[in-house]
Amino acid sequence: AYVLLHSIPRVIDSSSTVPDLLSIFHEQEMTETVHETNGHGYLGTFVGKNGWLAILRVHSHGLVTVDLQCYEEDDFAQVDNLLNALESKLKVILNGNITRIKRLPALVRGAEVDRYWPTTDNRLVEYDMDQLVYEEDSAFQNIKILHSQQYGNALILDNDLNLAESDLAYTLAIMGSGRENYTGKEVLILGGGDGGILSEMVKQKPKMVTIVHIDQKVIDACKKYMRGTCGNILDNLKGDCYQILVEDCVPVLKKYVQEGKTFDYVINDLTAIPISMEPEEDSTWEFLRLILDLSIKVLHPSGKYLTQGNAENMTESLGLYEEQLGRLSCPVGFSKEVVCVPSYLEQWVFYSVWKK
Amino acid sequence: AYVLLHSIPRVIDSSSTVPDLLSIFHEQEMTETVHETNGHGYLGTFVGKNGWLAILRVHSHGLVTVDLQCYEEDDFAQVDNLLNALESKLKVILNGNITRIKRLPALVRGAEVDRYWPTTDNRLVEYDMDQLVYEEDSAFQNIKILHSQQYGNALILDNDLNLAESDLAYTLAIMGSGRENYTGKEVLILGGGDGGILSEMVKQKPKMVTIVHIDQKVIDACKKYMRGTCGNILDNLKGDCYQILVEDCVPVLKKYVQEGKTFDYVINDLTAIPISMEPEEDSTWEFLRLILDLSIKVLHPSGKYLTQGNAENMTESLGLYEEQLGRLSCPVGFSKEVVCVPSYLEQWVFYSVWKK
Repeated sequence: AYVLLHSIPRVIDSSSTVPDLLSIFHEQEMTETVHETNGHGYLGTFVGKNGWLAILRVHSHGLVTVDLQCYEEDDFAQVDNLLNALESKLKVILNGNITRIKRLPALVRGAEVDRYWPTTDNRLVEYDMDQLVYEEDSAFQNIKILHSQQYGNALILDNDLNLAESDLAYTLAIMGSGRENYTGKEVLILGGGDGGILSEMVKQKPKMVTIVHIDQKVIDACKKYMRGTCGNILDNLKGDCYQILVEDCVPVLKKYVQEGKTFDYVINDLTAIPISMEPEEDSTWEFLRLILDLSIKVLHPSGKYLTQGNAENMTESLGLYEEQLGRLSCPVGFSKEVVCVPSYLEQWVFYSVWKK
Repeated sequence: AYVLLHSIPRVIDSSSTVPDLLSIFHEQEMTETVHETNGHGYLGTFVGKNGWLAILRVHSHGLVTVDLQCYEEDDFAQVDNLLNALESKLKVILNGNITRIKRLPALVRGAEVDRYWPTTDNRLVEYDMDQLVYEEDSAFQNIKILHSQQYGNALILDNDLNLAESDLAYTLAIMGSGRENYTGKEVLILGGGDGGILSEMVKQKPKMVTIVHIDQKVIDACKKYMRGTCGNILDNLKGDCYQILVEDCVPVLKKYVQEGKTFDYVINDLTAIPISMEPEEDSTWEFLRLILDLSIKVLHPSGKYLTQGNAENMTESLGLYEEQLGRLSCPVGFSKEVVCVPSYLEQWVFYSVWKK
């Protein structure tokens, strides 16, 4: 466990600050080492008999940081006492000169269940995952299902959080947020192996929904552990108004193009990073454009192509994606919408695309 | 900036692991100190001429952790190179014995804009705040408005994130998620100084909405910087169908009780932690029950009391709150709903309460 503490005093003089703080470490019988920093302020490390490590830095520009490393099984009241003592002493020493003081929650490392799943724009966020429900490496990817107290089970593919049982908002958004009517329609879903879209769509009595999903193991895992998302729809790969093809979508799309088959809706629910790369695709963007182009080709002239884009903060990626839309073999128009998907901890952009 | 790296090998022997890793630090001309840990594995600290500090721990139970402290203005490619080198070397040394390897985003300390606003259940989450828009200490609390790229401006009272401009979901939830009709109704709002509820409610043409908010400075700050929430409704403290009383709500509620005045709806939008404590309230819970009791007293027999509860994960607090509902001077029924408020990064519980 890690505990971090920092304060930003307006004025600081390490020669008067440090000795007073040292006494606190000495009381804990921690052994001090002062490090030579070549003019980068005071840096002391303190090691306790219990294996604790405290790092005290007094930076010349006024930042004081304290890190404390201890063990999960240690007495946390003792940890808090040490940090409280340091905080109080700092307040006394820097009386009136502290602009901010902040203690961060402990960072846990080496826990059985990993709780850190950074956002797409690489912010550190800690989840409330408490159990590894399932893990397997398929031929295509690493599949994990973790349980979260507030989000239910969450599907994680190659360490990328795909969807949690709480995330009906994702499913509704990629279906067009209630603006589309699927009754009697022909729909093609790329990816979508969690069954969320299918489960919602069959309620509207479509003519036929075809899902093309490459990874049987994802379907099996979701059928068993993501029932809050898929209900019982994955129990059968075929139903009155749907079929699930366990195949790579690229050859399937090519076959549809060749046959001249079209769909009223194509929903691209593939993971952001392609897991199957044909030789002709030399980059993620090439793959993405291939899928887009084939999808538009099998789209009925009055149909809609619906897809998830990226995190709202990934403005550059979103811009590049919209550039791709301008480079398709057929001119298209598009609209986008920002939606809050509960387990994502970042706003997400969804696209609707149509033929001009 | 902090960069953390850890791996969990199944088997570890520090005498064979450490020397190979050391060469990487030596190449960076970092000075090594080996610390005595009393049987708690290998602990080495490495200080560079540039003020960098690396901490390498090889725990006997198999966890290897690397921390790197550097400066915001440092060359991050150089930081990445060092971490990449360590990661590659670790993979070679522990060939086939690594169960997990993970590098966390850097923790930034001492930045001008604080990006860490832990959740109610004390999880570490990093926001995308990029600007301190406003800060002032009122007679009641510290008021901050921070700008977030994806959430717009966010109101932070006493370091507790209250509401961001993205959070219409909060406003709709505390208004009963569309199940209530405010047309022609008498409504009392406690708190609500951000103007979100009022701004939505006037659209439904209520008879009269009375807001009782204690802190003029919050209203002024929101009027100026939270227009995505309040629109122009706070530009005037009085309108055709509303009035904003800048007062402590407790005496106002008591006056209403005395006068026998009732409301069709009482919406409690006060902050979770009371900022005004009368002598008769010796704890947060006492205050909470006082407000609840007075609110129910001014509630029309067929009226509804609507309020936000707490984070879904705060099961104990939610349980205690529901216990309070059972201890009111008048028996009540209640229902609750879990809602995703975009900027909260945790699921939130809202209550509807009515007289039995």
